[in-house]
Amino acid sequence: MSKIKFGILGGDFRYKILWDLLKNEGYCVNCYGNGFCTNTVEGITGLAEVSDVIIAPIPCSKDGKTVFLPDGEDVKLKELTMEMDKCGDRILIGGVMTEAVRSAADVYGIKVYDFFEMEEVAVLNAIPTAEGAIQTAMQESERTLFDSKALVLGYGRCGKILANMLKGIGAKVGVTYRKDSDRAYITAYGYRPVPFKELVSYIGDYNFVFNTIPAPVLNRDVLKKLSRDTLLIDLAQAPGGTDFGYARNLNIKALYCPGLPGRVAPYTAARVLKDAVINISISNMG
Amino acid sequence: MSKIKFGILGGDFRYKILWDLLKNEGYCVNCYGNGFCTNTVEGITGLAEVSDVIIAPIPCSKDGKTVFLPDGEDVKLKELTMEMDKCGDRILIGGVMTEAVRSAADVYGIKVYDFFEMEEVAVLNAIPTAEGAIQTAMQESERTLFDSKALVLGYGRCGKILANMLKGIGAKVGVTYRKDSDRAYITAYGYRPVPFKELVSYIGDYNFVFNTIPAPVLNRDVLKKLSRDTLLIDLAQAPGGTDFGYARNLNIKALYCPGLPGRVAPYTAARVLKDAVINISISNMG
Amino acid sequence: MSKIKFGILGGDFRYKILWDLLKNEGYCVNCYGNGFCTNTVEGITGLAEVSDVIIAPIPCSKDGKTVFLPDGEDVKLKELTMEMDKCGDRILIGGVMTEAVRSAADVYGIKVYDFFEMEEVAVLNAIPTAEGAIQTAMQESERTLFDSKALVLGYGRCGKILANMLKGIGAKVGVTYRKDSDRAYITAYGYRPVPFKELVSYIGDYNFVFNTIPAPVLNRDVLKKLSRDTLLIDLAQAPGGTDFGYARNLNIKALYCPGLPGRVAPYTAARVLKDAVINISISNMG
Amino acid sequence: MSKIKFGILGGDFRYKILWDLLKNEGYCVNCYGNGFCTNTVEGITGLAEVSDVIIAPIPCSKDGKTVFLPDGEDVKLKELTMEMDKCGDRILIGGVMTEAVRSAADVYGIKVYDFFEMEEVAVLNAIPTAEGAIQTAMQESERTLFDSKALVLGYGRCGKILANMLKGIGAKVGVTYRKDSDRAYITAYGYRPVPFKELVSYIGDYNFVFNTIPAPVLNRDVLKKLSRDTLLIDLAQAPGGTDFGYARNLNIKALYCPGLPGRVAPYTAARVLKDAVINISISNMG
Repeated sequence: MSKIKFGILGGDFRYKILWDLLKNEGYCVNCYGNGFCTNTVEGITGLAEVSDVIIAPIPCSKDGKTVFLPDGEDVKLKELTMEMDKCGDRILIGGVMTEAVRSAADVYGIKVYDFFEMEEVAVLNAIPTAEGAIQTAMQESERTLFDSKALVLGYGRCGKILANMLKGIGAKVGVTYRKDSDRAYITAYGYRPVPFKELVSYIGDYNFVFNTIPAPVLNRDVLKKLSRDTLLIDLAQAPGGTDFGYARNLNIKALYCPGLPGRVAPYTAARVLKDAVINISISNMG
Repeated sequence: MSKIKFGILGGDFRYKILWDLLKNEGYCVNCYGNGFCTNTVEGITGLAEVSDVIIAPIPCSKDGKTVFLPDGEDVKLKELTMEMDKCGDRILIGGVMTEAVRSAADVYGIKVYDFFEMEEVAVLNAIPTAEGAIQTAMQESERTLFDSKALVLGYGRCGKILANMLKGIGAKVGVTYRKDSDRAYITAYGYRPVPFKELVSYIGDYNFVFNTIPAPVLNRDVLKKLSRDTLLIDLAQAPGGTDFGYARNLNIKALYCPGLPGRVAPYTAARVLKDAVINISISNMG
Repeated sequence: MSKIKFGILGGDFRYKILWDLLKNEGYCVNCYGNGFCTNTVEGITGLAEVSDVIIAPIPCSKDGKTVFLPDGEDVKLKELTMEMDKCGDRILIGGVMTEAVRSAADVYGIKVYDFFEMEEVAVLNAIPTAEGAIQTAMQESERTLFDSKALVLGYGRCGKILANMLKGIGAKVGVTYRKDSDRAYITAYGYRPVPFKELVSYIGDYNFVFNTIPAPVLNRDVLKKLSRDTLLIDLAQAPGGTDFGYARNLNIKALYCPGLPGRVAPYTAARVLKDAVINISISNMG
Repeated sequence: MSKIKFGILGGDFRYKILWDLLKNEGYCVNCYGNGFCTNTVEGITGLAEVSDVIIAPIPCSKDGKTVFLPDGEDVKLKELTMEMDKCGDRILIGGVMTEAVRSAADVYGIKVYDFFEMEEVAVLNAIPTAEGAIQTAMQESERTLFDSKALVLGYGRCGKILANMLKGIGAKVGVTYRKDSDRAYITAYGYRPVPFKELVSYIGDYNFVFNTIPAPVLNRDVLKKLSRDTLLIDLAQAPGGTDFGYARNLNIKALYCPGLPGRVAPYTAARVLKDAVINISISNMG
């Protein structure tokens, strides 16, 4: 098999690094519409011609009609998939691949992959998310994380990895649970298990609270119990899990921090994407 | 609610400790047929009379007819449940609660709980299992775990907790994976991910190999690749995952270590059982 | 013994927190010349009258003649100690207690303590220093510390604690050594020992370099070997150990970060000072 | 320089492994008087002839007159050094190199090195010592180290490394201190600092007690305060720091565990010795 040829379409600074990383591994990469790279081809037609796999932006489309391209001419979703089909490109990878994107691809039998539906990408993205949360906590607090009490709400991907790092840096970590089996794991990793339904009676103890649950868990009843010098960092998907207005009324410092990987560690985030696009491409074409 | 009354029926040394632990928490506990406690009642009839919850042995029955009682007169399963019913005892907790046991209980509408089907018990039992595996590795090897290379086969309950402890003691830990999401977690916790299907090309690197997979994974092809001074510890459920005969031929030190919790840390194992029986009882009766 | 009475003279934001912490523990505290607290007494005379122990600023004096007080009238060192003597205050605690300060105190037999000469304060200050270094590294780099290669130059107080935290957060940590016994400890804590005299052949490997050695160790020969995308953070006492001009020529990102504890974690830094002033006072007066 | 030639004289199983390790690194090694290796030369004369460096047993001599050789003919210390001198061997390395040994060497200007006086060997030996202590604690207790309370008496080489491993395996670790700077380090590494002089009021809390202090610290007053199910492991140099007779009276399980490295991890212990003999030889001859 000859080396796979990638075409990067739009995207932010991460895609610039993705470009570098793919080239460093010897792949042929071309680019159109990314503000941090010079275009190497003319338009989507040019890109499709020299590529096997197209890497679409995150999100792929905001309006359901055109590709989300801040730095290029408008490209219709249909145009993209038609050009890909003409050139025999069979794989389209990107973020937030909505029904509109999938329909446009289905017409030509092009396979669609969504970074956000790949469990492995999600887990690995939890690493820069956790590190970004820690960085933010350090910046915004007057005390060290070391020897502080830090509570993590939620024991999913991000909760697991964040709890592990917080412990590594010397915080005393509590983690909320609903299921008894989570309580057992939380115990086994050396954290303090906090029953979610008794959150109000535990949360006042903590200097830092990190939320990873995408539901309104930090509501008025809970916020009232927070100590006034506690720092609250909400990492959950939009719109987060905190009643921010009420937190402001109570004079609690509550920060909403979505999209950390791309902001705090674009290099690491790009490396995760790189591994994913190569894995997908090889498993399809290798 | 008045305090729950427990009846311990048979069992090994763990049940003696369970008895102590329940009494220390202020519960009323009686006992029949456990070699480490003096009987406090006469026969199963006596036990049923003074109990709300009966704690049956692990396994509850070996022959599908009688309760497994090394130190008491024969008690038929039907007799047990009939006596329980007479006295209004509605909960029977034990280990390996087979179809025979469940049938006998169903007749009287008695609820049956099996320690081995409780995810929380299984996770918490992985702690003494992991510690027992580490103890065995230390005893049987001429090198320290510190700075050695240790491979864990399988990333389930026991694999996760064992990998964490091995890293804590200073070993360089590899863990096998099949799923990409497991690879991501293995990476995120700082272990080396080893693709299971390439085991033969990695295993020769390791000084210690711990198997947790209940399938014949350490077969001839794999064993051939082991270094002669590697120590192999198999923790998987009977019959383990190792071709022990072939390992012997190759002069590889391979140990089969089932049932570690009860053997190496009966106190800790009993505490896990105690939490389980209290949780079950309270959620049924509290 | 009645509770000790403290007088805070000048100082930065940490001294404001120190004030709060001492009051929270029930001590009588007065204040003069700190920009973050309202004066509670009139001038140094007033402060001396109501205090047993005077806490002088860090540094105590910049010119060797007057107390360093950005927010108050000039107070001569001699005036300070004379007033203390009049009121029977026998203990003066502060930072950078130079010969000039000590001479002024000696006249009246007042005991002088310097925060920077207390080993315990120095070790505990290494915690916020290390955390500040980690925060800076996270802010200034496009990659995560997790899974990166981080080199710590020097295995003194700060080097030890920084290496431990970096490992905790998932970095692969190297530490330089000169003495064989340090090499042994570096090995025993799970870091990679790097011989200081071979620094040039190792340093190119690392994504992050943290210097704690107060000597020109990051000179031209060493800087030349750094990878261009390495981040260099210098924590050593002024003027640091880096040839910053040359680093700029090479386009290496090199940051000088002195005085981190007061900047990144004034609360934690103040707590360290609080423990120190209480320990000193009790051991003298208790 | 041609490769150094080593002569192993006597010694236990570690010296057999030392022999293997030195040969694996390409050194010429001969042997006399070690029960686990066949003699490769005739007597001390033969050994001296083919060696540059003689590795004497641990201890080198028990009676101050002859070399401690369980498995060979008597060799007088004077005979050893005379034969070495004849053949131009200038370096004698061993353990417990008493005044008698040094005098015999001084006559011929032979340099003497003692494993026990090498800080690096002592630190690295603390690793198998700590691991042996952990193995023993696991074997002898009915509870897991995980989640138990473990107290380490003394924060020297062994105390530091043992505390680190215990924490790694999930114990809640306390460490005693006398100096405030040790308290600060103990805090910074995440252990609970226990003031040595208040040992009696803290020790009752702990499930495991590990002593590393070579002084009678576990005396009657302290032992009285121990919980009856606490396991006490004494690692201090002979005769240990425990009043074992009194512990027996109190029915406390107290174990004296000297010499762990050679017993529990002879391979690791031998590797430490190998590094030491090579370092010494190269720095003298290289």
